[in-house]
Amino acid sequence: MNSELSGKLIIIKDKKATKLYEKSHYGNMAPEGLQLSLIEAVHLAEKGKLNILKKGKTISLDEMFQMLRREELETKYLVFSDLRNRGYIVKTGFKYGSEFRLYERGKSPGNGHSDYLVKVVSEDYEIKASDFSSYVRVAHGVNKKLLFAVVDEENDITYYNIEWTRP
Amino acid sequence: MNSELSGKLIIIKDKKATKLYEKSHYGNMAPEGLQLSLIEAVHLAEKGKLNILKKGKTISLDEMFQMLRREELETKYLVFSDLRNRGYIVKTGFKYGSEFRLYERGKSPGNGHSDYLVKVVSEDYEIKASDFSSYVRVAHGVNKKLLFAVVDEENDITYYNIEWTRP
Amino acid sequence: MNSELSGKLIIIKDKKATKLYEKSHYGNMAPEGLQLSLIEAVHLAEKGKLNILKKGKTISLDEMFQMLRREELETKYLVFSDLRNRGYIVKTGFKYGSEFRLYERGKSPGNGHSDYLVKVVSEDYEIKASDFSSYVRVAHGVNKKLLFAVVDEENDITYYNIEWTRP
Amino acid sequence: MNSELSGKLIIIKDKKATKLYEKSHYGNMAPEGLQLSLIEAVHLAEKGKLNILKKGKTISLDEMFQMLRREELETKYLVFSDLRNRGYIVKTGFKYGSEFRLYERGKSPGNGHSDYLVKVVSEDYEIKASDFSSYVRVAHGVNKKLLFAVVDEENDITYYNIEWTRP
Repeated sequence: MNSELSGKLIIIKDKKATKLYEKSHYGNMAPEGLQLSLIEAVHLAEKGKLNILKKGKTISLDEMFQMLRREELETKYLVFSDLRNRGYIVKTGFKYGSEFRLYERGKSPGNGHSDYLVKVVSEDYEIKASDFSSYVRVAHGVNKKLLFAVVDEENDITYYNIEWTRP
Repeated sequence: MNSELSGKLIIIKDKKATKLYEKSHYGNMAPEGLQLSLIEAVHLAEKGKLNILKKGKTISLDEMFQMLRREELETKYLVFSDLRNRGYIVKTGFKYGSEFRLYERGKSPGNGHSDYLVKVVSEDYEIKASDFSSYVRVAHGVNKKLLFAVVDEENDITYYNIEWTRP
Repeated sequence: MNSELSGKLIIIKDKKATKLYEKSHYGNMAPEGLQLSLIEAVHLAEKGKLNILKKGKTISLDEMFQMLRREELETKYLVFSDLRNRGYIVKTGFKYGSEFRLYERGKSPGNGHSDYLVKVVSEDYEIKASDFSSYVRVAHGVNKKLLFAVVDEENDITYYNIEWTRP
Repeated sequence: MNSELSGKLIIIKDKKATKLYEKSHYGNMAPEGLQLSLIEAVHLAEKGKLNILKKGKTISLDEMFQMLRREELETKYLVFSDLRNRGYIVKTGFKYGSEFRLYERGKSPGNGHSDYLVKVVSEDYEIKASDFSSYVRVAHGVNKKLLFAVVDEENDITYYNIEWTRP
């Protein structure tokens, strides 16, 4: 499927994009077609499902990764990709102060709530106990679980489930 | 019950101390009686169950808290006290690199394993992602849950349960 | 060999990078080439083996060290560099709560286990006895030796081997 | 065997004390008899091998432990006792800035060097990396191994062997 880079978004005008949206919950439907974030588009491109054009010329995977790094989105991309590969629907967690919200297998944005908020950090990160507290509070307030995804230097991801508890 | 401050420990010679040890699992039994840590003793004193004497004179609660602060044990005391009040048996977690290990209601040091390791931090603490990794790994390795107890400026304690997970 | 700074990573597209990866175990192989961390790249650049470009212009060693300091990676860099110079393969130790894991001469990430975990601290660091306990426990649990690398004000590094023992 | 408290030392005038000195290497020979430290004497008394008199009256174990705590020697006592029970000859490490020096089974103060220096700390202790460095340096300089003995709140002792190393 072809798509086109437009600013920081990628647009698919192909009618078949509807399926990508309705079944797999990628992107947002707009009058001009399906809008994908750079992260979503690169993930699809890396899996050979999408061709991204810029002024009519295909962008290479190399160029895509450069774009991701230029935007400091690489760590986020790795986690997105890993979670998608595990079968989750992954949408932005922006409204909750997190990188992602996750829908478990069988659930979706239109049909039931997301179950997880995902906070992405790299191995050198130092978490202030008070920030910690605010991430967990937000997740708890909206009845979601909080996942910390820590990406190490070898791009391996370790996940921690963090819950507010009264022992 | 009377006890006596002796060095940094508190000793109860009263035979009734046996119950405190056998039923509630405070302190360590020594030839001369029950040895309590400062934290254990102040907790019992604050609840009106113990009278701590120094050279025959009762120590006031004020003096006890001064001692705790002098030893930089106040944060640790707050968490100990809160967990004891919730019904847990609270013993040192040193061997697991944590402040405490907890036994749930019905379990005890002589009868079954502890269920939780407790890491005590104050709200201005910065948790390194790699320390996080080592605390969780230790807890996971000994099949215990990890609790982070964050003490804020108003001495309120928030508990977080942290687990290694594969989403 | 030329490389390019891209976000916080350094990319080598040169086919010769394969050798750096397969023989010396630097970085991670990605579709676009070999990804190095800033620490790895500066080490290679300092040894005259790598030229790092930013928008086509070579970055000076001065600029590189500024970048390391900005990321608070200088102490870690010193230890990385010293251990690489002694012939070790040095990879992240994040999963074990340490800065590095080391492979002895003749071993490598794909061929045998790492032998050491390395904890990097500066000379003004205060090691809590309980953290000590958790680092040693992790190392012991995965059958690795624990090295403490203490970096002093003159950037000299002293290494200590720490083991759990029953005398 | 009877002994007498004299200031902070315990004196055994009994001729049989010679054996305690020559075979088991307790205390120091003085014109008036064998001088024991409080720690040595309490250890022997606890094992039923010594009776300590003060103005002709036997001191109870209770009183002995009180004396130890008053001098803040209890942690040190626990480690001394544990190491003696494991078969080591334990002498002061004062000249080396440590609590004890140890002779392995078969060696003794008059016959061969001590093998270990022992640093005793309690679980709440924070070790400055620079102190650390000085303990290890001293041990290394006199060709001995350094043991850290950490005593937790339940009086359990964990030993760490620490060595200077060039990886």
